[in-house]
Amino acid sequence: MKALVLVAHGSRRQTSNEEVIALSGVIARELKDDYTIVEAGFLELAEPSIPEAIDRCVRQGATDICIVPYFLSAGRHVHKDIPGEVDKARGMHAHTAMTILPHIGGSPQMKELIRDVVRESGQAG
Amino acid sequence: MKALVLVAHGSRRQTSNEEVIALSGVIARELKDDYTIVEAGFLELAEPSIPEAIDRCVRQGATDICIVPYFLSAGRHVHKDIPGEVDKARGMHAHTAMTILPHIGGSPQMKELIRDVVRESGQAG
Repeated sequence: MKALVLVAHGSRRQTSNEEVIALSGVIARELKDDYTIVEAGFLELAEPSIPEAIDRCVRQGATDICIVPYFLSAGRHVHKDIPGEVDKARGMHAHTAMTILPHIGGSPQMKELIRDVVRESGQAG
Repeated sequence: MKALVLVAHGSRRQTSNEEVIALSGVIARELKDDYTIVEAGFLELAEPSIPEAIDRCVRQGATDICIVPYFLSAGRHVHKDIPGEVDKARGMHAHTAMTILPHIGGSPQMKELIRDVVRESGQAG
């Protein structure tokens, strides 16, 4: 059974964390044919942590977990901290496959998203 | 003449700032029919600052500047700090129209971008 964990930095502002949790719900509907389970996880400042989010997936029966870093740039958090947190989870769930995907800011679709944000604002043309 | 300023947080890692500058170049090509000028600007830790980026646009002839916050969540930076920096620029260029667009993390297309990141990684299906 496949699961997806959307990983965000986490904020002191609870509404920012709630935005991420709401987005994970939207993604759950968008990818429902591919992923039975979708959870949000936070690197810092908010709950659940990344290992806790992964643990929630495993307890729901996940055997294959895809971790999506909801980060714009590939800094220390993406290169070092998120892999470190996922390694903690690997230590607890040795028989669960876990794959960390590229951070979303590196997506070639980002330019199209920005184009759409600009066009829909009525500021283009 | 219309200009667009892509505003990012700014990082101590120069490669992160270069990613943003490269993205502004991609957006310049993507939106070349709508925006004659595209610049990147940084809230903190990197150059050019937001007022400097706006000033670059004005010196190139911009009369109408659209500011796009390249931020995932709508925290203090989006609600307070970016408008404050744009207000500094307004003080210097009273005859230039400046509009701050919604932060990109609030875009309804974000779920599609994440879906595409997941599908293209070969982790879906």
